[in-house]
Amino acid sequence: MGKEGILVVISGFAGAGKGTVVRGLMEKYDDYVLSVSMTTRAPRPGEIDGVSYFFVDKKKFEDTIDAGGLLEYANYCGNYYGTPRDYVEKQLKAGKNVILEIEIQGAMQIRRIHPAALLLFITPPSAETLKARLEGRGTETAEVIKKRMDRSAAEAEEMEKYDYIIVNDTVEQAVSDAHAVIEAAHASPRCNAELIRRIREDLRRMAVPEGG
Amino acid sequence: MGKEGILVVISGFAGAGKGTVVRGLMEKYDDYVLSVSMTTRAPRPGEIDGVSYFFVDKKKFEDTIDAGGLLEYANYCGNYYGTPRDYVEKQLKAGKNVILEIEIQGAMQIRRIHPAALLLFITPPSAETLKARLEGRGTETAEVIKKRMDRSAAEAEEMEKYDYIIVNDTVEQAVSDAHAVIEAAHASPRCNAELIRRIREDLRRMAVPEGG
Repeated sequence: MGKEGILVVISGFAGAGKGTVVRGLMEKYDDYVLSVSMTTRAPRPGEIDGVSYFFVDKKKFEDTIDAGGLLEYANYCGNYYGTPRDYVEKQLKAGKNVILEIEIQGAMQIRRIHPAALLLFITPPSAETLKARLEGRGTETAEVIKKRMDRSAAEAEEMEKYDYIIVNDTVEQAVSDAHAVIEAAHASPRCNAELIRRIREDLRRMAVPEGG
Repeated sequence: MGKEGILVVISGFAGAGKGTVVRGLMEKYDDYVLSVSMTTRAPRPGEIDGVSYFFVDKKKFEDTIDAGGLLEYANYCGNYYGTPRDYVEKQLKAGKNVILEIEIQGAMQIRRIHPAALLLFITPPSAETLKARLEGRGTETAEVIKKRMDRSAAEAEEMEKYDYIIVNDTVEQAVSDAHAVIEAAHASPRCNAELIRRIREDLRRMAVPEGG
C-alpha cells in the first residue's frame, strides 16, 4: 500500500461524537496528526501559535488566500479561519494521515482542491440516540437542541456525498472502523499512482518488439 | 457496518496470482463464496453441476439473457459463459461476499449493472516480477509469455478504473489487504442506504414543529 499519508475529512451531526473519534484515532495509532488552522482571531490565554492555531493578521491571511495557500477557509463573526495547504502537504509527504474536522461545505471545498481526500461522516446509530446524547449533556436548552436537530436533518440529506459512513455506537468500534477505511484508502489507485505509472511504462517498454 | 455481502470483482494481469489470492480469502475467512458461472459447454469428468458450473443448453442460456438473468456474459469458442444474477443476489442477501474472477470488460459490465460492486485489481510489485513469474512456471513458450506481457501492457492502461489496487508481493499480505478493503466497503454509503434512509426520515419527523 502507498507510503504518503491520507487527508481525512471528518464531519458529522452535532452530538455524533466526532471529537471523541478523532481523539481515539490520535491516541490509538501513530499515523495521525490534526490539521492546525490559520486564524485572524486573537489568541486566548494558553493557546500556542503553531499548535492551537497559526495566528496571523488580516493582511497575511488574505495574502495567503490570494497565493492559493489555503485548502478551504471561511469567515465567522468577522474572523477568518482556514486550512493551510503547506502544513497539510508537508505532513502527508511525511506519511502522516492529516485529520480535518470540518463541516460539509468545507468538506466539499476540500474534495474539489484535493480529490484524494477521504471524507468520513460520523453518525450515531439512530436519530433517537442523537437526541438522547444532546439532551444527556444537560448543558443545552431545549431550543438549542431543537436547532441542532434541525441542522442535523439538513445535513442528513448530504450523507451520500461522503466516502464512508462511520456509525458511532461504541467509540472503540467507531475508531477501529474509521482506521480500517483510512488504511484501505492506501490501496486506492490515486494513492498508487506512482506504482501504476512505473508498471505501465515497464510493460510498454517490454512490449516493444526488439529493435522496434 | 452493513449486513449484506459485497460483490467483489477480481481482475489482474495473467501471472499476478489472482487465483492464489482468491483461494487465500476463501480459506482464511468465512465471509466469501465464489460465484458459480452458467455455461453451455459440456461438463468435463469430475465437474459437478451447481458447483463447478451451472450446465445448461443454448436455449436455456439465451432465455436467461433475455430475462435479464445474467450480470455479465461472453461467448468463447462457441460456448456461452455468464454470471447468474439470482445466485449472486441470494448469496449477497445471506451476507456472503461473492467473488467474481473476471476480466476488465466483464468487470465494467458488472459495474454498470451492479454499481455497489467492489472492483479489485491484482498486480505484482513490478513488471519484472510479472515476467519472472510467467517464466518461472516453466510451462509456457517464449511466444506465449510475450503474448501475455503484451496483453498486460494493454490491461495496465485500465488500472484506474478499479476501486483498489492490491499488490501481490507476498500472498499473505495481498490476502489481508484484499480483505481489509472489502471490509471497509461495508462502511460505504451504498452499503448503508437503509441506515441513512431511516436516520433521515426520523430527523425530518423530529424537525417538524409539533402540530405542524
